[in-house]
Amino acid sequence: MTTDMDHPAPRLPVVVGVDMGATKILAGLVDADNQVVFRSKGKTGGERTPKDVLGRILAVVQACLNEALARSLSVAGVGVGLPGPLDSDAGIVLEAPNLSGWRNVPVKAELEGVLGLSVHIENDANLGTLAEARLGAARGLPNVVGVFVGSGIGGGLVINGDLYRGSHNIAGEVGHMLIRKGGKKSGAGIPGALEANAGRIAIESKIKKRIRAGQKSYLEEAVKKRRITSGLLREAILVNDPVVTPVMESAINHLARGLANLINILDPDVIVLGGGVVEALGDWMLPRLVKKVGPLTVGRNKKDAPIVPAQLGDDAILLGAALWARQRLERAT
Amino acid sequence: MTTDMDHPAPRLPVVVGVDMGATKILAGLVDADNQVVFRSKGKTGGERTPKDVLGRILAVVQACLNEALARSLSVAGVGVGLPGPLDSDAGIVLEAPNLSGWRNVPVKAELEGVLGLSVHIENDANLGTLAEARLGAARGLPNVVGVFVGSGIGGGLVINGDLYRGSHNIAGEVGHMLIRKGGKKSGAGIPGALEANAGRIAIESKIKKRIRAGQKSYLEEAVKKRRITSGLLREAILVNDPVVTPVMESAINHLARGLANLINILDPDVIVLGGGVVEALGDWMLPRLVKKVGPLTVGRNKKDAPIVPAQLGDDAILLGAALWARQRLERAT
Repeated sequence: MTTDMDHPAPRLPVVVGVDMGATKILAGLVDADNQVVFRSKGKTGGERTPKDVLGRILAVVQACLNEALARSLSVAGVGVGLPGPLDSDAGIVLEAPNLSGWRNVPVKAELEGVLGLSVHIENDANLGTLAEARLGAARGLPNVVGVFVGSGIGGGLVINGDLYRGSHNIAGEVGHMLIRKGGKKSGAGIPGALEANAGRIAIESKIKKRIRAGQKSYLEEAVKKRRITSGLLREAILVNDPVVTPVMESAINHLARGLANLINILDPDVIVLGGGVVEALGDWMLPRLVKKVGPLTVGRNKKDAPIVPAQLGDDAILLGAALWARQRLERAT
Repeated sequence: MTTDMDHPAPRLPVVVGVDMGATKILAGLVDADNQVVFRSKGKTGGERTPKDVLGRILAVVQACLNEALARSLSVAGVGVGLPGPLDSDAGIVLEAPNLSGWRNVPVKAELEGVLGLSVHIENDANLGTLAEARLGAARGLPNVVGVFVGSGIGGGLVINGDLYRGSHNIAGEVGHMLIRKGGKKSGAGIPGALEANAGRIAIESKIKKRIRAGQKSYLEEAVKKRRITSGLLREAILVNDPVVTPVMESAINHLARGLANLINILDPDVIVLGGGVVEALGDWMLPRLVKKVGPLTVGRNKKDAPIVPAQLGDDAILLGAALWARQRLERAT
């Protein structure tokens, strides 16, 4: 075996992973060891036209491509995580309720046309779950459910080590799971749905209602000026706020019912719990959830519900997008 | 190519499939084309010791083996579908709530010891789903959820064409799904569970309560003497009984919520709905269910919920057991 130092082994190609959220776009240059070696970000501008938003995605991707060029790294393709129901194979976002005018937007074709690179899109909660199952809190486990508690509640399923997308690419809609009769509706108009009882928007609405009814709260001033962020919820919980604490406890009761259903139906190795609300309040929420979920499960140790906090934070979706692009590229060759 | 009529091709081996229910045991000799070429049956005698029950399983299997011998058929192995949580790989039934004294019964070892054949056990609802997905109402479809409404409610999942058993072999416990706050408990003590609101035992208990409270019903005499079978429910529905009809409509509302959850979480090709209650009342239940489930689903045509009636009837579990035994035998070689 000879070694020629003048001709080092070519570096393995990198991929660009993109997390397009309702407010910001994160992109990263991800190497073959799944390390993010460069990051770029921008605002989504979701109130603008889809064409404008696509332009902003292109800008953050281009920043990554420029960096790759500067480092002499070859880029194999691009993965993009987006909200809403989409047709991953055709590369079309069917609908994105939080963005203006997004119906049947051909994201893959539009980006490929400009970039000249292979682009692969997938639902953001699916990609977050894939990343946690391969690289994060559930690393190496074959059956993983991801539940992300943000403004709404999204989810994803990894089964036998692979992303499970269902027969029409809409599996994992855990936020619309009915966990009570009647009550508030989810974003998709389903009464009694999990996200209508335990998502941040639902939590915020309950808190505002109580404060308007005259209950004393640490958030009295805050609710007049701005939305209740997960960070504000954390501050209120830390002072054992008389409004926020019982509202969060009720949300946890509802969430526990949803997680128990997922465990009883899917018997996963773990549920990975993430999203803004969990990132801010996880240390307070997790032990309470585990205690409540256990007794609602069947056929297992009721004291040890398999729920773990997400580990990848803001990188989860872009890492999942990179994994997805790499997997699609490999299976295509 | 030569044909030697004196030496016909050896017949492919058959397998024995067994459905061990709470009251009766069905066994069948199943050929390589998944046809049941011979049947035998016996009573379970679930009130006796596990040893007695195993003796009865052996008797029905032996009848099949005798028939195979008479027909010069070679038997490759035995598959057995049983209720309750079990360890399929070890071949042990962990618990069977409807049978007396069944805790940690080594069914596989006991049967193999006597029969001298390879024996493979699996949960009955899982096997019913596998059979419907391969040979019945969902033939050839990759992602199938089976829901069986009998005295309780059982379920099974086929994902990417294979039985999905979860990480601890307890996936598919759909009867314990929480679909309302509080209310009656399931067999496993879960309040607000689907089977506590829509299984036959729950339906029977509601009907009896109303009749005892003085409401007029076609079943007034029947409830004094015996349990309310699915057949009696059908008779009462056909005369639009003032007690049974609203109780069944309420059960359908609850069942619709459970089925919508399964569709939103798993996005299957279809849900196959079977079990005694559905076999008796399916033509009345199915259109009502489809109408109620559709609006509770997201991301799909709300008028066309993918729910179909089971097709294999009493053969479902024994056919599933035969498929399971064959699959385990093939993968072992």
